[in-house]
Amino acid sequence: MTNPTAAMLVIGDEILSGRTRDANMYFLAGELTKIGVDLKEVRVVSDDADAIVVAVKALSKGFDYVVTSGGIGPTHDDITADCIAAAFDKHIDVRADAAALLQAHYDRQGSEFNDARKRMARIPDDAVLIDNPVSVAPGFTLHNVHVMAGVPSVFQAMVASVLPLMTGGAPLLSQTLRIDRGEGDIAGPLAKLALAFPTLSIGSYPFQKDGAYGANIVIRGSDGGAIDAAMVQLAELFPA
Amino acid sequence: MTNPTAAMLVIGDEILSGRTRDANMYFLAGELTKIGVDLKEVRVVSDDADAIVVAVKALSKGFDYVVTSGGIGPTHDDITADCIAAAFDKHIDVRADAAALLQAHYDRQGSEFNDARKRMARIPDDAVLIDNPVSVAPGFTLHNVHVMAGVPSVFQAMVASVLPLMTGGAPLLSQTLRIDRGEGDIAGPLAKLALAFPTLSIGSYPFQKDGAYGANIVIRGSDGGAIDAAMVQLAELFPA
Repeated sequence: MTNPTAAMLVIGDEILSGRTRDANMYFLAGELTKIGVDLKEVRVVSDDADAIVVAVKALSKGFDYVVTSGGIGPTHDDITADCIAAAFDKHIDVRADAAALLQAHYDRQGSEFNDARKRMARIPDDAVLIDNPVSVAPGFTLHNVHVMAGVPSVFQAMVASVLPLMTGGAPLLSQTLRIDRGEGDIAGPLAKLALAFPTLSIGSYPFQKDGAYGANIVIRGSDGGAIDAAMVQLAELFPA
Repeated sequence: MTNPTAAMLVIGDEILSGRTRDANMYFLAGELTKIGVDLKEVRVVSDDADAIVVAVKALSKGFDYVVTSGGIGPTHDDITADCIAAAFDKHIDVRADAAALLQAHYDRQGSEFNDARKRMARIPDDAVLIDNPVSVAPGFTLHNVHVMAGVPSVFQAMVASVLPLMTGGAPLLSQTLRIDRGEGDIAGPLAKLALAFPTLSIGSYPFQKDGAYGANIVIRGSDGGAIDAAMVQLAELFPA
């Protein structure tokens, strides 16, 4: 049994120019792992319509789920919603359901629901709104693509809304053993261990601390019993 | 005049599973911006040969430079060098120049240059080695692809070696103005400013602090005079 797959598309010049350090990829990766959806690819593209459309089409076709972050605010550089509509040949305009949410919000605030703010109610036909408990302006789901804000607090709230809609597989379990020897010393036996447990993924993550080499060996898979058995063999191979 | 373009390929299950938070993308983005190379796309893929080969081919064709990180150590899950060779139809084996570097290193250490460590000397034909002053095992450049380690200290040292080989354009300059008003209030005038300065990129990055909305407006471009002029107009539009 293989788990469902996911890809993420991060949209924004600020990430690619090094101005902002992306936080959403790391968050989403952890959340998907917990529910047994395998995040297989992440792409980061700039605020460029062609780049966004090409990436959305490729990822939507290649994976079970796609999550996007960024580019759904009110300013001129927020073009994600229009690009998603273009990728799926859908009409897009200010939609009554999204406009009503925002109108009520700005009425409460005593602010004007002006043209810029109305951009945030541009939703493609047939898309389903994603609730935004932080700042109201909704995300949306079209086909297998979940379109979310880039601001981390809003992104995280939207992920919480959408995760229950994803059908996860077996959660990915993992155990880690730290081995205080260089990777070059452990790689041979480790490769044999990996062959003996073909359903598990065995990764080696080297580090250097106080001048000494070591590696964290992480054994991952959905079969807890197999992981236990592999950990026992691993500990026997490299006694502390 | 347009700047040369670059893409980055991050290779590693540990990023996609949420175990490790990538640090190399943010570092590379900042370094490329300084020398006037526009980072246009980042992809993160798992330790899967097909995924790596497909991504390397696409990015090598689509951009002037490609930088990869991860998967060049001695363990069985380090398959990047073989995948790069496959992507460019090159023969790959333990190469004398790389083996000599590593042999000398392990001789000094008094360690055995065993089969696992010899994996780190697997270099495709026609590739040029990239110096690794941190832990010796070299990266390499093949065509327009620079192949580097994933460990951040090694990645950063390799980037320092390779940057002088890249022909940069005009460095990207930027100025930022913080405006303590919601994006919805500033988006209209901001869009007009963007139209008036078509050679500049004007981005709006909203924040919420102590219950109040604001946005950092970042004006980027290679023409310092144009940025100054746009900043003057921006400040007039939104007096403090």
